[in-house]
Formats: sequence, structure tokens, C-alpha cells
Amino acid sequence: MMLHRLEDPTFKDFRAALGTRWEQDLLLAAAYVSDAQYNRNVPFETSPRAIRLYYFYNHWALRVATYVFICVDLSLALFEEPALFPLPFLATSIVEVLCLTAFFGRLVHFAKVTPQMVFWKDTKNICILVTIALTLLDLIIYGSLEAVQIRGIRWSRAFRPVFLINFPESRQIRRALRSIRNTLPDILYVFLLFMFSVLIFSLMALKLFGDRGLKTAEGSPYLTNILEIAFELYVLVTTANSPDIMMPAYDFNRWYSLYFIAYIIINTYIFMSVFLAVVYNNYRKHLKNEIRKLVYLKRHKMMEAFKILKVKVDTEFVVREAEWKRLARMVVPDISSSHLELLWRISDEGQKGHVDRMNFLRLADLLNIQVVTVSIRRHPLEAWAPRVYQSSASLFIQRMVRHRAFVWVYDAIILINAVFIALDERSLFISRAEWFFLSLYVAEILLKLYTYEPRAYLGRKQFWNWFDILIIIAALVATVANATIQSARKYSSQQILDIVLILRILRLLRVIVSIQRFRVIVTTLINIGPTVLTFAGLIFVVYYAFAIVGMEVFQGKVRFFDPNFTAPDALACGNPALRGSAFARARYCKNNFNDLASAFLVLTELTVVNQWHVMAGGFALVTHQAAKLYFIFFHVVVVILIINIFIAFILEAFFVAYSLEKSKLETVIEKKIQELGVGIQEEEEQDKKPTDDVGTKDGGSSGGDGDHRRAAAKGLYCRIASNRYRTVDALLQRMFESEIAPDEEGPSLDEILSFSPSDMYVKNPNFENSA
Amino acid sequence: MMLHRLEDPTFKDFRAALGTRWEQDLLLAAAYVSDAQYNRNVPFETSPRAIRLYYFYNHWALRVATYVFICVDLSLALFEEPALFPLPFLATSIVEVLCLTAFFGRLVHFAKVTPQMVFWKDTKNICILVTIALTLLDLIIYGSLEAVQIRGIRWSRAFRPVFLINFPESRQIRRALRSIRNTLPDILYVFLLFMFSVLIFSLMALKLFGDRGLKTAEGSPYLTNILEIAFELYVLVTTANSPDIMMPAYDFNRWYSLYFIAYIIINTYIFMSVFLAVVYNNYRKHLKNEIRKLVYLKRHKMMEAFKILKVKVDTEFVVREAEWKRLARMVVPDISSSHLELLWRISDEGQKGHVDRMNFLRLADLLNIQVVTVSIRRHPLEAWAPRVYQSSASLFIQRMVRHRAFVWVYDAIILINAVFIALDERSLFISRAEWFFLSLYVAEILLKLYTYEPRAYLGRKQFWNWFDILIIIAALVATVANATIQSARKYSSQQILDIVLILRILRLLRVIVSIQRFRVIVTTLINIGPTVLTFAGLIFVVYYAFAIVGMEVFQGKVRFFDPNFTAPDALACGNPALRGSAFARARYCKNNFNDLASAFLVLTELTVVNQWHVMAGGFALVTHQAAKLYFIFFHVVVVILIINIFIAFILEAFFVAYSLEKSKLETVIEKKIQELGVGIQEEEEQDKKPTDDVGTKDGGSSGGDGDHRRAAAKGLYCRIASNRYRTVDALLQRMFESEIAPDEEGPSLDEILSFSPSDMYVKNPNFENSA
Repeated sequence: MMLHRLEDPTFKDFRAALGTRWEQDLLLAAAYVSDAQYNRNVPFETSPRAIRLYYFYNHWALRVATYVFICVDLSLALFEEPALFPLPFLATSIVEVLCLTAFFGRLVHFAKVTPQMVFWKDTKNICILVTIALTLLDLIIYGSLEAVQIRGIRWSRAFRPVFLINFPESRQIRRALRSIRNTLPDILYVFLLFMFSVLIFSLMALKLFGDRGLKTAEGSPYLTNILEIAFELYVLVTTANSPDIMMPAYDFNRWYSLYFIAYIIINTYIFMSVFLAVVYNNYRKHLKNEIRKLVYLKRHKMMEAFKILKVKVDTEFVVREAEWKRLARMVVPDISSSHLELLWRISDEGQKGHVDRMNFLRLADLLNIQVVTVSIRRHPLEAWAPRVYQSSASLFIQRMVRHRAFVWVYDAIILINAVFIALDERSLFISRAEWFFLSLYVAEILLKLYTYEPRAYLGRKQFWNWFDILIIIAALVATVANATIQSARKYSSQQILDIVLILRILRLLRVIVSIQRFRVIVTTLINIGPTVLTFAGLIFVVYYAFAIVGMEVFQGKVRFFDPNFTAPDALACGNPALRGSAFARARYCKNNFNDLASAFLVLTELTVVNQWHVMAGGFALVTHQAAKLYFIFFHVVVVILIINIFIAFILEAFFVAYSLEKSKLETVIEKKIQELGVGIQEEEEQDKKPTDDVGTKDGGSSGGDGDHRRAAAKGLYCRIASNRYRTVDALLQRMFESEIAPDEEGPSLDEILSFSPSDMYVKNPNFENSA
Repeated sequence: MMLHRLEDPTFKDFRAALGTRWEQDLLLAAAYVSDAQYNRNVPFETSPRAIRLYYFYNHWALRVATYVFICVDLSLALFEEPALFPLPFLATSIVEVLCLTAFFGRLVHFAKVTPQMVFWKDTKNICILVTIALTLLDLIIYGSLEAVQIRGIRWSRAFRPVFLINFPESRQIRRALRSIRNTLPDILYVFLLFMFSVLIFSLMALKLFGDRGLKTAEGSPYLTNILEIAFELYVLVTTANSPDIMMPAYDFNRWYSLYFIAYIIINTYIFMSVFLAVVYNNYRKHLKNEIRKLVYLKRHKMMEAFKILKVKVDTEFVVREAEWKRLARMVVPDISSSHLELLWRISDEGQKGHVDRMNFLRLADLLNIQVVTVSIRRHPLEAWAPRVYQSSASLFIQRMVRHRAFVWVYDAIILINAVFIALDERSLFISRAEWFFLSLYVAEILLKLYTYEPRAYLGRKQFWNWFDILIIIAALVATVANATIQSARKYSSQQILDIVLILRILRLLRVIVSIQRFRVIVTTLINIGPTVLTFAGLIFVVYYAFAIVGMEVFQGKVRFFDPNFTAPDALACGNPALRGSAFARARYCKNNFNDLASAFLVLTELTVVNQWHVMAGGFALVTHQAAKLYFIFFHVVVVILIINIFIAFILEAFFVAYSLEKSKLETVIEKKIQELGVGIQEEEEQDKKPTDDVGTKDGGSSGGDGDHRRAAAKGLYCRIASNRYRTVDALLQRMFESEIAPDEEGPSLDEILSFSPSDMYVKNPNFENSA
């Protein structure tokens, strides 16, 4: 693999003979670098055919296709019994078999890329294969039963999220699941102790209140059965029946309130905080372990790439410019020449025409840094009509728009507008005012475009300016649409009208743009956004499995009737068992499992916790008391585990954001880009306009988006759009990278893969503390 | 101040003349050391009279007296209108004046101790003075109005917690309050943004649902008024009206659920997590700043003490053995000679007869370490009847008791007992079984005392053994009492019976003792205990102020009637305004503000959050809709601020506990005690019994309590009972101490007092990360 390629002409023929070989080596190296860049960890075979297959495997079209098939497979639940949009079994089963074939194909493709041994040792692949087999089995059984008119249970549907979890692309969700699995042993003992505490309190409640003959507010006997007591006390932990469960005992004797206060302090406050602490602690621990793995794997892959491309110059191994540039172009085909040149200058420290190992290892990180070049040009109006644009009236307008009071005036206008929106819009005066406000907003945008250079104002990264303009356009469209609809009076779709209404109100969000502190908070929230989607994925997986089970168990037991409908049991949700129950009294009939959408909504309500015991009680009435276990289990999984991890995640993300604010970490790379950015683009046109134009005063460009560093003081900006460093993962990765020596080889691949969080503390005592 | 005291006899007369001066210096130094030991930060004058007054000021009797007066003053609310135990105004006002006099006396005493300038600059003292004045004014006004039969408002009562907060002894509560105050600016913007978001959603709700003519489950109009919508949406943030508020819109059109889901994700999940993150972040930041202040202040005081006592020996200043020992005896009068000798040997490193500055500075920490000497003696039975105790039958019993299965058998017995408790006890068989189980437990204790040395088994720090024995004794007493009561059948006080019942069930807690993992969790919780009391104090202060306001506003508006009572409005809580309201339907009549105890219970229920809107609605009905502001304000203060700080505290405490488990921090001092502990007590009697006796196998001595280090392998143990290092504060203090050089002078007093959290990060970048 190590070829000492020399530029000497006598070797030219030799090189031509080796051409294909060289191409293949470069392809392999590019695959390693690309994997390092995107943190992909697929062990692939290094034969030329396998590498080409691997490139094809990573092609965006195939990945998108896989996701489409996963989506189709998951959405089948909308069309199967109990269906939102019913389709015959034949149709859904054909689509399902199609999806399974696609999954199987993708897996076969993967098997051809990866070594056999690795393929069969990976539980992900086994999981997918088993799930495909089980699903086919289920389809056959259900189909045959269907043929003889027996209604079966499509149990394999609950396993569908397995496909979403186990394809290599869903690394984030898998990591979150792993984090949960790792937390389980630690949380188990706390949970047992908690259950023990609930049991002790249940026994006390039985002895204290069981024989008193007390009645609840609804007239039913109060805490007489140990199972019922245990359930009610579990509900009390979630605070869902908080004062109600206490009232009969408190009415009887005020001292009994002490029992409930003790229970709430111990079980609700202390144990629930301990759960959060244990989950949080484990989340942090495992997150850091994963990051460590990622960092070492990345380094490992870059070393492999280096090994392939290195040539010996003098005493050390290096990679030459030609190879380096071809490699970079192979990894990022659409890289611009100036960008590539910048990266090369950063890597080639001594300007020797080659990079050493240490600088080569940086390539993946370099490619991850988005470099945006921003040029300041003269305002088009100034170029077009300089005399008018520079006239005193025009300058006065520009000064006015730049003035702080301009922002204040518009904030006041928005507040007045809010009052007008709240008022009754049927009055003619108010609907006229609507147009008046809109024209004020449009005028504001136009004035800003007049004052600031439009291309700079609407630059790619000027999030807040875009936000502002989009909101105004939406409101404009909404108001025009509203007027059209009202004047036409023929077409009045409820949905359209509602969307119009919402768009008009969302306009008030503009206040956020003008208050710096609000922008900071919102920017932090938006930066957290992408990773929050991991949790959305995780919650979707859990919801889906629970929804399928719930639909099989509870479908059709509870039905919703239109209020005007006069069915005998319309008020009892069509089920006599619910007559007089809290479920029916609260009019929860539409909280049912009769289709996927309804099931998801019920599960959302259960996640919010309040009144979950009423729903559990209702569904227990129409089936069996054991149905409450479904709801308890859901609470444990979603609220105690996942929501706590979500909170842990938000806390960690905020702490990282805070520490970023305080200490702007700057890597060597970024410093260099700053230094070099000027050098490369200095030759271009210079402009006399004050740099304020894209500076801090334009009311939109700064403050929010990314690190936004001005590399050149005049004329041209070379900005690093390092938004990706704002995520928790990226920051932790960077922190960890700063702790390992730049030329450290790191542990072997096997060692890396068997990292456990406990040995991390021994090896890297500082890393544990650094976040 | 610097006296070169020499032991030369020719100086004896001179020393006698200086005797009083020397005594005074020692007294002053002892005051500094004592302040450093207990982290007291009272700047006192150094004149002899002031020092004596300061000693008197710190006397335990005076401090206890102050707390008694504070308690009496606070508990007056129980006896004043609206009273739990009514007393005439004259009686309560006389007691209150008495308390005020005591507070004033204490303050005058303090003024004599501290320099005038400092006294008047301290807001604590001003607060107390102003509150005393206001209370007197209020008493006079109320008294005069009372005299002319007009009912006034005792508004000054809400300020009573000021006394609890502002006396120097309540440092912890003050610190928590400071932490809240410091969090406010940061949280304010998040809160404003959150309110803005609620407002936007309220406007949307008004437009979307206001004109639909929908009805709630109770038949009232649905979301028609902007104020009502804003309130309902704020309630939705607390999840208290979670699915109910959505149901009418959802029944009307299923797409409207998206509005509510968006609202809950944004406002309940994201904003509430952000609140927690901001509060937590600030809590940590300020906690560490306070700790830093404490550490430097302690060092400052020790330096002052050193300056007073130092003499010059050769080239360096030192403190001689005689002075050092007198000082230590003055600070801790009841220190044992062997303990003092141990401390001296640790301090006098070179055994030169004097300590240098660095070692002197440690004195306060040394005095804080509790050294417990444990001696292993032969089992008394062995000394008394060696042949019987060493017989094969006796040895078999001992082996059996030490066996692991012994613990398992008893765990099984406890579980069976739990089942028996759950069963109906009126059956004769089961009440007999009760005695059987009790005798089994007593037998267990006796067997353990037979096997293990009783004095070691019941040592001062054997928490779990004591726990075990106390539970059994309590259960024994309870069962005997129960039998007596049942046989007598004359006296059957409900309270006594209930306590008996609870004691019998608490016996099941013994399971915790035998499961190691449970013990660890419980030990952590118990260690957190003392600091949780700070929060109890804080919550008490807030509750008290809110309760007084609530009592003045809502007293008598809602009344509770016995269910058998047939008053016209008994079911509407005696107030026709409540007829048909959710408050009356849920039978919340006893949730009222008619006395202090009821008010506290209502506030507890509001803290738990669920159904708080029903209570707010109820009290708004009997007074005015604006009354809801009282409940919203309570929610913001208690749930958003204090409960979040409580959670932050628990999280931090757990992380510290976890990091302690991993890295057993050991100070130089403790290592030395371990080395020296052997040296000092080696002379004493040796024993041939295996050291297992107080080792890990006795089922109780290890695992839980403190660091428990065995210094001597045989005969005698010198244990460091360093429980106090388990608290967050102590650990942080220690971590910070390890970072400043042992002989660093530290900043000046003024600098220390003006520390702010922001400059900490610059000075000590590592400290921020170390917890």
C-alpha cells in the first residue's frame, strides 16, 4: 500500500502502470476521510469492488429511498384496521412486503460492503433480519385467518420502529436508546426502593383509612382495596390526583394531611428528583464515553487514510499537495477552488508543498468548517443614482432608520397592533386598521432595504432579517387572502381561514427580533433544535409501539359521537360500562385508540401526565383493571425515563451554551483561517462604505447566527459559519480533542469499540469535569 | 501584639505582668479560630470588652433564646384572628412586644460587638430595625381601631419571617434567598419571552375558538374572553387542566389539537426546562462564589489569629506548643487530651515544639474533623464464661448469625410479615402471628448481640444497627400498646392507635438495612438531609408570608361543614357564590384560609400544582377575579423559582455524591491521622479476636456512615467520622481549598467581600469545572 511516488520523469511509465492502483488507493482514502468527516462508523472491506459498493451505499439517493420506505412502512398503520383511512388488507400487505424487500435489499447491499464476520456480529443486522422474518410470518398468519374470516392480531406491527432504529443512518436515536439502556441498572435500584416506599405507604393507608367507611367526592368507597390504594398512590406521585385523594381523610381528621404531605415529599419530590439525577448523571457519563469513541474512531480513520497516501520525504512521511487536493475534491466534489486553496494553506504550515501527519489528521475537521465569504458592495441605488442617494434627505432617512428610536417606534406599533387584533374585527374601523399596520410594516422593510445593502441584508446567514421579512410577507398574504375570502363569501374553508388568522397573529413575533436578549434565548433554542429532533425520533418510536399495542387492545371500546347525535350511550362514549364514570363525565370520548392519530394524541396527553388516571380508569372499565398496567408502564418509560433524559439534555445544552458565551473556544484552525482569510482575498475590490453595513447596527445581522468573525477589516469578510460547534455533541467532541495530543495514535480499534464509561474516569480525569 | 514570649525563668515576672494581656490575646485568637471553624463572618471589635461581649453573644443559650423568641413570634399567627386557638388581642400583642424587645436587645448586643460603621452598613440590621418599628406601628394602629370597634388589618404580620431570615444564625436561608435574588435578572428575560409566547397563543385561541360557540364539559362558554384565555393557558403550562382545556376544540375538529400540542411543547416542555436550566446554572455559579468567599474569609481569620500568637524562632514566625494547646482548649473546651495530642502531632510536623504558619492555618479544619476512637474488646460473655461462649454449639450459632443466609431468611420473614399486615387483622390467627413475628425480630437482635461485641455493635456511628434496633423496639412498644388498648377497650384515642399502626408497618423498613444498594441510596438521602432543611426554612418563610396575606384576604369566605351538618349552603362551603362551581363539586371546602394550619395546607397543595386552578377559581368566585393573581404569583415564586432551586440542589448533591464514590478525596490531614492514629494508641491492650467484629460482615457497621477508616489493624481503631465532608458545601469548600496554595495570603478582606461570580471564572478557570 505504501508507494513512494516520486515526480522524477523516469518513473512516469511506472506510475502510468500503477495509475489504476493509485486511483483505488485515493478512493479508499477518500472513503476514510468522508467517514471521518460525517462520523460514520461502518467497517467496510477494502477491496476495490467493496469500496465502490460502499460509495454507492452512502449515495444520498439510496439513503433517501431507505427513509422513504421506512416512512411508508410506518405510515401503513394509518390504513390498516383500525384505520384512519381504511384500505383492504391486500393493499397494505402488498405495500408492506414491498417495504420489507427494500429493507432486505439494503441489508444485502450492506453485507456486501462489510466483512462477513462483522456483519453477523452486529445486533443491528440481526434485529432487522428477525423483524423481517417475524413480519412475514405475521402477514401469512393474519392473511390465512382473514381468508377463513377469523380476525387475527397484527402483532408484528409494534416492531416496525425497529427498522427506523436499526438502519445505520439513525445513529442519534440509537445512541439515545443506548443511553437509556445503560441507565437502567442504576435506576433499577432506585425504582425498587421507590416501589417499596409506595408499598409501605399503601399498607399504612389501608390500615389508617380502610376501615373508616369514608367516601370520595363521587360517593365511592375510599381506599379500601390494597391494589386500588397502590394505584392511587402511584398516581399521587405524578400529582395527577393531588388534593382529591387527600380530601376525604383531611375532612375526617386534619392530622391525616401529614401522611399525604410526607408521601408527597418523599415520593414526589425526593424520589422524582433522584430519578432525574440518576438519569442525568448517566446521560452525561455515557454521552462523554460515546464522544470519546467518536473522536478516537475519527482519528483512527484519518490515520488509515494517511497510511495509504503517505510518501517519504527526507526523514518523515508526508502527503503531497497533488494527492491532498485530489483527495479533498473527491470527498467534497463541489468545493470551490478558493476554499480548497485556503484549506491547503492552513494545512501546509511551512509552505513546503506537502503536509505532515499531524496536519493531515485535521482534514476532516477542516472540511467540516463552512467558510463563507461575504463581500461588501456599494448600495445599488448609490451606483445607479449617486446624487439622489447621497442627498441630504436621503441621508436623513438612512440616519433615521439606523437610529435606535426607529426600532422602539416599531415595537410600540406592534404592541398597539396586538391590542387591535384582540379587539373585535367585525368593526369596520379595525379591519381598516389592519391594512394600515401592514403598510407600516412593509414600509419598514423597504426603508431598511433602502438604507442597508440588500445583498448583505439578505445574506445566507442573516437569519433574523429573513425571519422578519418572511413574517411580513406571510401576514400580507394572509390579510389579502382574508379580504378576498370575505368579499367572495362563497369559499370559506375553515382550515384556510384558521391558517390566515394564525399568520396574522404570528406577525407579533417581530418584537423578538428587536430585543437583543430575546434573540439570544431564541437562537439558543434554535441551535438546540436539531438535536431535539433526536428526542422527537425517540418519542415517535416509543409512541408508535405503544399506539399499536393500544389500538389492538382498546380499539372500538370507546367511541365519540357528535354532540347532536342521539345514540343511547352517546354521553357514555357508546359503552355502557362508562356510564357515570369520571372518563365520561370529563367528555373524554374522543381520547380513544380507534386510529393511529387518536392513539398518538392520547399518548401525548398521557405524557403531559395530568388526568392520566382518569383515562387509565376509563379504559380499565371498558376492558379489565389490568389495563391500568399499560398506562403505568407508559408513564415509567416515557415520563420517568425519556422526559428526564430530555430535561437532562436541555440542561446540558444550556450549560454548554453558557460556557460558550463565556469562553469563546477557538481552535488553531479557526485562528489560522482568520489570519489567512485576509491574505487570500485581499487582492479584490475595496469599498469605502463603512463596515457598519453588515456590522452590529443593522438590527439583524449580528448577535444570533454562529460565530460570525470578521476576518478582514475592510472590503471582504471571510466568515466561519461554525454553527455546528453550537451543538452539545460538537462542543464535547472539540473539548475532548483538545485534550488528546495532536499526534497521539490513540488506542487500537478493538480497544476503542470496547470503551466503557467507567474506565474513562481513570484515563481522563479532567475530561469528566470539563463540561 | 507580637510578644516574644520565652520560657526563660528570668522573664517570669515580666510574663506575670503581661498575663492579662496575654490572656486577652489568646481570647481574641480563639475567637478568630472559632469563627473560622464554624464559618461565622461577624466583624467584631478587638477591644477586650468587645471580645468578651462577643463570646457572650455566641453563647449557645443566647442563640437558643433568640430562636425561641423567633418561634414564639411566628407562632403568634396561630392565636390571632383568624385563629386556630383564639386568644384575645391583648395577650398576643403583649407577647409580640416581648419578642420585639428580645430582638431589639439582641440587636443592641450585636451593635456593641461590631464596629459602628459596619453595623449601620449592614442591611440585615436595618431590616430588623425597620420591621420592629413597623410592627409596633401596626400594633398601635390595630389596637386603637380595636378600641373603637373597627376591624383593622394586621399587615405587619407578613413581615415576621424577616426576623428569621436576618439574624446572623440563619446564614443558609439567607444564602438561598441571595441565590434567588441573583437569579432574577437572568430569569426575567426568559419569563418575559415566556409571557409573550403565552400572549401570542392567547390571541390565537381567541381568534380560533372565540366565535365558535363551543361549550366546555361543564356547559360554560369556551375561551371567549382574552383574560380568561390567558389564565387558562397559564394553567396549561402547569399541565393542571391538561386534556380538559383541549377537549371541546378537539371534539369540534381534530386538527385543533395541533395548536395545543405546539403550545405544550413550547411553553411547558421547553420554557420550563429553560427555567430549570437558568436557575440551576445560576445556583451553581453563585454557590461556588459563596464557597470561595467562605474559604478566603476562613483563611483570613486564621491569619489574624496567627498574627496575634506568633513568636519569632530563628528566622520564621511560629506558634509554640503551650499557646497552641491553650488556644485549642479555649476553642473546644471539652476536647480530650488524647485528641489534642493527636492534633498537635499532626500540626507539629518536625516535632520541634512549635508550628509554622502553614500548619497553624489548618487548625480550624483539624478541629472540624471528628476523631472517634473505637476499641475492640472481648465479648463480655467470653470474659465472663469463656468455656460456654467458645463451646462448639455457641460457635455454631455465631457462624450461623454471620452467614449470609441469615440475612436472607430474615428478609423473607419481613416480606411474609408484610403480607400478614395487609391481611385483615381482626382474625385471631393473624393477631397471634403478629407476636410470632415480633419474637423472631427480637431473637435476631439478641443473636446479633450474642455474636458481635455489644459495645462495638452499638457504637456511636453504627447508624444502621441503631436504626434496626429502634424499629424493633418501636414495633414492640406499638404491639404491646395495641394489645393493652384492645384488652382495656376503655381508652381508644384515634391518634394513639394510628401511631401504633404506623410504627408496626415501619418495621418493614428493615429490608433496607439488609440490601446494600438500598442502604447506599438512603445514606445519600440522609446526608443531603441537613441541607434540605435550608429549603424547608426557605419554603416556610415564603409560605408564612403568603399564608398571612391569604388569611387577611380570604378568611371566612369558604367554610367547611361536617357532612352530617344540614346548613343551607353546606355543600357550597357556606358561600352561595360557590354553588355549582368546580371548587364545591370537588369538595374542597376544607381548603381554606381560615387559620394558619389550613392556609399552610392549601399552600402545600398549590405547590404540588395539580388542581390549583380549581382553588384559584373558587377563591376568585368568593372575592374577585383579581384574586387569581395571588395564586399565579405563588406559582411563579414557589414552583418556578424555589422548587427549581430545590431540584438543582438535589442534582448537584447527587453529582457530588457520585464523584465522591469514584474518587475518594483524601486530604493531607486525614492521611496523617491515619498514620499517626496507630502510633498514639499502639501501647494499649491487644486482642486476639478477628477484626471482622466491626468489619464489613456484621451487617451494619460499614457501608453507610462516613469514611470509616481503620487506622490500626488490631486492637484499636482510630476512625475519622468525616460525615460533614459529604455535604455539597463541604465538598466544594474542600475542592476549592485544594486549589489555592496552602501558604497563599489570599485577597484582602474588602476584596473578598466584593467577590462576584463573574470574576471567578477569570481567576479560577478550573474551579468552575471541578464540580
